[in-house]
Amino acid sequence: MARVLIIGAGGVGQVVAHKCAQVPEVFSDICLASRTEAKCKKIAAQLSRPIETAGVDADNVPELVALIRRFRPDVVINVALPYQDLHIMDACLETGVHYVDTANYEPPDVAHFEYKWQWDYQARFKERGIMALLGSGFDPGVTNVFTAWAKKKHFDTIEELDIIDANAGDHGMPFATNFNPEINIREVTANGKFYCDGAFVETKPMEISKVYDFPAGIGPKKIYLLWHEELESLARFLKPHGLKAARFWMTFSDNYLKHLEVLQNVGMTRIDPVMYNGHEVIPLQFLKALLPDPASLGPLTKGKTCIGCLIKGTKDGKPRRYYVYNICDHQEAYREVQSQAISYTTGVPAMIGAMMVATGTWKGTGVFNMEDFDPEPFMQKLNIHGLPWTEQFLEG
Amino acid sequence: MARVLIIGAGGVGQVVAHKCAQVPEVFSDICLASRTEAKCKKIAAQLSRPIETAGVDADNVPELVALIRRFRPDVVINVALPYQDLHIMDACLETGVHYVDTANYEPPDVAHFEYKWQWDYQARFKERGIMALLGSGFDPGVTNVFTAWAKKKHFDTIEELDIIDANAGDHGMPFATNFNPEINIREVTANGKFYCDGAFVETKPMEISKVYDFPAGIGPKKIYLLWHEELESLARFLKPHGLKAARFWMTFSDNYLKHLEVLQNVGMTRIDPVMYNGHEVIPLQFLKALLPDPASLGPLTKGKTCIGCLIKGTKDGKPRRYYVYNICDHQEAYREVQSQAISYTTGVPAMIGAMMVATGTWKGTGVFNMEDFDPEPFMQKLNIHGLPWTEQFLEG
Repeated sequence: MARVLIIGAGGVGQVVAHKCAQVPEVFSDICLASRTEAKCKKIAAQLSRPIETAGVDADNVPELVALIRRFRPDVVINVALPYQDLHIMDACLETGVHYVDTANYEPPDVAHFEYKWQWDYQARFKERGIMALLGSGFDPGVTNVFTAWAKKKHFDTIEELDIIDANAGDHGMPFATNFNPEINIREVTANGKFYCDGAFVETKPMEISKVYDFPAGIGPKKIYLLWHEELESLARFLKPHGLKAARFWMTFSDNYLKHLEVLQNVGMTRIDPVMYNGHEVIPLQFLKALLPDPASLGPLTKGKTCIGCLIKGTKDGKPRRYYVYNICDHQEAYREVQSQAISYTTGVPAMIGAMMVATGTWKGTGVFNMEDFDPEPFMQKLNIHGLPWTEQFLEG
Repeated sequence: MARVLIIGAGGVGQVVAHKCAQVPEVFSDICLASRTEAKCKKIAAQLSRPIETAGVDADNVPELVALIRRFRPDVVINVALPYQDLHIMDACLETGVHYVDTANYEPPDVAHFEYKWQWDYQARFKERGIMALLGSGFDPGVTNVFTAWAKKKHFDTIEELDIIDANAGDHGMPFATNFNPEINIREVTANGKFYCDGAFVETKPMEISKVYDFPAGIGPKKIYLLWHEELESLARFLKPHGLKAARFWMTFSDNYLKHLEVLQNVGMTRIDPVMYNGHEVIPLQFLKALLPDPASLGPLTKGKTCIGCLIKGTKDGKPRRYYVYNICDHQEAYREVQSQAISYTTGVPAMIGAMMVATGTWKGTGVFNMEDFDPEPFMQKLNIHGLPWTEQFLEG
């Protein structure tokens, strides 16, 4: 029986609250906190059992500490913005409470997608006798667990890892981003990067693409090579086991890329201020003010997501190709937790990660990535809590 | 020998100043005025002979009247914004000075492209014993003169008039508008409209298009049906002579339309204010702040414009098809007047219109459109002053 504090009441926070509330045998007491407490109360009203709510500025460590001291959680789930990871980790250190998040810390001024800042907390978490579980979303998160599972169960050596993320959903709007538009656009306008023969190789944004034929009726879609944070930890993890290449791929529709290209051409993705009538306007933030609120897309989105790992290696001296993936349906997710699959696939693993920590199934002191633990209990929980997975052994 | 006051020091004002300065036998004295006098001084410094400059707010009638009383022009050329036409006409009425412009008045809040407001000045200009010459640019302007010329010289009846405007220039930028982006975008996002069998028929924006094969090596280009103000006066003009259809067409590249579509989709062409950090931001005006200054495109633009009239009718009882057009080269225009062909093709006819008025070649009291006068002297001046035209009798 554990007490959990969830920080962040956006789309993912809503899913985490729903999923924690569904497991009272683990999460006896839940508090949902956000800068705007009204958002927490709105989510609380959807749930099958009562939870606490609180208003907190996640950039304000003393405020966070006071909230943690008041609610006394066993574990904190951070699903606020990536800019706030370090403040919440600081508050956990000060209060001696375990920490779980879904996305790596990012400085507000420039997109990095690196674990450096959070891995630097290793010694402090160890000394304090608590654990931080980093990146317990889908990608990173489940993709790391899939990889650890493949390595444990099906491979002696792993030479190639391709993480492939398809959102084959359609919200019916001419253009909208599925989560915070600022983060979304930062991700796809950044340079690409992948692991190759011991080093990371940079590409121009969206420079490398190919067509991938997805299962479950999704069919062939164009996928683009992006940098994604789990490649950093997974390359480190698989290096001693023969890794030659690790890549991350994501689908983007031609329409989405057309909009992005134009917005870049006219300067609307800039994050430096532009003077307008005597006031500073940051184009990307003004764009966010113009676009539909991602939360409003939930009830409109149809179709599926498909995220998985395609792995090439050897078992018992023989070459092997293996694909493990999850299919999540936007409308089914919305029916269950009033959020579409993008939030659902991130929120469910955040709950399961907190469950691993709260129950002591995953145990340790220091800062951990998902592949550092035994994947088996996590893989079981995925099947139980809404993200069932499928594995295939492929020819050729 | 006449004194001319030019109001407006944008791209077109610059061309008008250059071209008036080239004709000292007509324009003995020139004053160039604009809200920002520094812009006038910069243009004055390019010219072969000295001119006066002045600062004036073209929305402020008393300021305009004071300037007119001080400089005592015989004719005022208005190449400021279309929002300012009526203020400048008011000042001409008060001072008894002839008026010439290149674009119809437009209320700031919504795009109309109608002569209504300016035609309402008819009685007042008549009583005051002065003339207003409306729309003495290229289109409207030369296109009206081309039509009047065709009717006078080559046709007994005119059944169809197609005005076709191609900008086959390339500024090498991913996206930029050739003149004031706000006016430019208003024009192409407005509904289309054309004259058909006695009435005007509306279309959705850019609903009707076809491919037209342009002369002078430009070749086939996609043209789109737009509403353009000269259709209003030319339909009235040709109605008694058998007119069945009158249409205006303009080329747009797929790339230009792609940018425009996306900017509309995300709301960047809206002209209503959006709240951003406690301040009102009008998206279309913010877009203007982001895009390259149209004046900066001058030195970059290569290629040609081709604007002309394709006319179908009868002569001596036999069917006839006739095409009259001008070709203008962006780089040649820039070498001569430091502005590309879009400004050049508007500014030269403004000078010629003022010349017609100043020399009494075109004479009258009241408000006139270009086709109300004998086209012959204007057609001659086009050949002399940089906009030579070609006519073709077509088969079929």
